[in-house]
Amino acid sequence: MDKVSLLPSERLDDLLTEGLKIIQSDEVFSFSMDAVLLARFCHIPQKGRIVDLCTGNGVIPLLLTTRTKAAITGVEIQERLADMAQRNVELNGLAERVNILHRDLCGIEKELGHGSYDVVTVNPPYLPVSQGDQNMNQHFAAARHEVFCTLEDVVRTSSCLVRSGGRVAMVHRPSRMVDIFCTMRAHMLEPKRVRYVHPRAGEEANMVLIEALKDGKPELRTLPPLIVYKNKTEYCDELFEVYYGKRTELIETPESGESL
Amino acid sequence: MDKVSLLPSERLDDLLTEGLKIIQSDEVFSFSMDAVLLARFCHIPQKGRIVDLCTGNGVIPLLLTTRTKAAITGVEIQERLADMAQRNVELNGLAERVNILHRDLCGIEKELGHGSYDVVTVNPPYLPVSQGDQNMNQHFAAARHEVFCTLEDVVRTSSCLVRSGGRVAMVHRPSRMVDIFCTMRAHMLEPKRVRYVHPRAGEEANMVLIEALKDGKPELRTLPPLIVYKNKTEYCDELFEVYYGKRTELIETPESGESL
Repeated sequence: MDKVSLLPSERLDDLLTEGLKIIQSDEVFSFSMDAVLLARFCHIPQKGRIVDLCTGNGVIPLLLTTRTKAAITGVEIQERLADMAQRNVELNGLAERVNILHRDLCGIEKELGHGSYDVVTVNPPYLPVSQGDQNMNQHFAAARHEVFCTLEDVVRTSSCLVRSGGRVAMVHRPSRMVDIFCTMRAHMLEPKRVRYVHPRAGEEANMVLIEALKDGKPELRTLPPLIVYKNKTEYCDELFEVYYGKRTELIETPESGESL
Repeated sequence: MDKVSLLPSERLDDLLTEGLKIIQSDEVFSFSMDAVLLARFCHIPQKGRIVDLCTGNGVIPLLLTTRTKAAITGVEIQERLADMAQRNVELNGLAERVNILHRDLCGIEKELGHGSYDVVTVNPPYLPVSQGDQNMNQHFAAARHEVFCTLEDVVRTSSCLVRSGGRVAMVHRPSRMVDIFCTMRAHMLEPKRVRYVHPRAGEEANMVLIEALKDGKPELRTLPPLIVYKNKTEYCDELFEVYYGKRTELIETPESGESL
């Protein structure tokens, strides 16, 4: 574990997977279940190139290193977060495998190259600027609201970066599902697998994991729901295993039938 | 119960709800769980006008009469099925409340009137003509494959028939979800509630119930999943109650927030 310095308000947390540590800050950015589930949901090649957009403090690239030897790039527009992500990479001795870029994702395909990635992952801001409580600091506002990029920006950029036959995996709110499907299809990203996350049995979904195939044929699979809590306080077994590192992938789902 | 005659191959089944009976035929058409769930899923006004497209033997109009006093029209393109539906209406003494039309749904808004219905229900054929086993008789082929109407036809016609602020409820295959959302939105039908049906816990969804609002604002609710079997042979409690008539609506879902 390499030495890095912590800024005021920052703390060092355990990612509970293969000894990974992560710098977080409740004043700026802490990862949530959304990122952990996305990193465990997407199909990942053993080699190749992966880019994580809206990478925040780099939690998804860190977790992906436990599943693949691929080269991973993380893109973050907020300087404070990109710096935190860079220190997280160094802290875990992953500088040769993970590259953090402090950039706006809009137009970044000009720098990174059209169709040059096998997989794009993204945990974008969920809410339009007009919705929800924006009386929060600028860092949280940008992580939650479409301040710097809209869903359309995220999907268009993802489609530009991924190769034909490559995958784009996203976590989002189910309330935006129609927007997501329509925008993805308009950008030649065909949704192929979706998994809804419900806090408890009998409750509506509050999160959704989506995987799309660039230039794919229409045919969507809706996986078994993930019910987070099995009672008032305990995670379901699958999630417990994901969080405590015994399982690095969500339910195995064969890829058969996912043709271009 | 009025007297009607049965044709060869036809049998009389019990709909298990308020004494309703239904004529079926394994050679031509028998209703399935899809229709029962749709009739219990959709929001239905106590009065007004409802039209059920692709009505088959009229099972959805029959079931809806137990939930509303609204006037119900059923539209069916196959003469043999429209005749069966008409006899089902007479058999149950519902001729004053349910009107069966032997018509092609394409263009029927010219006869029935644009925006003249509060609710449209539809259990359309699920498969494109190119998919699946079509080595079946013409009646089954038309009920399962898009022989007489495509998804686009069904959605366009539904949108023409329903008033602004009225609802369109559909049951379909989850594999077509992207087609459904994109086509509905293109025709000013905004999906507002969706419920996925999984045969068993841990299995992918094989059916989906969707309700859209004409001219609605984007904001989709994904209801708790419906898991059909609680073990190898027994229905879950909710479904048992739906099938055996103790419950005429699926889980009550408040309509708050469904604004135009």
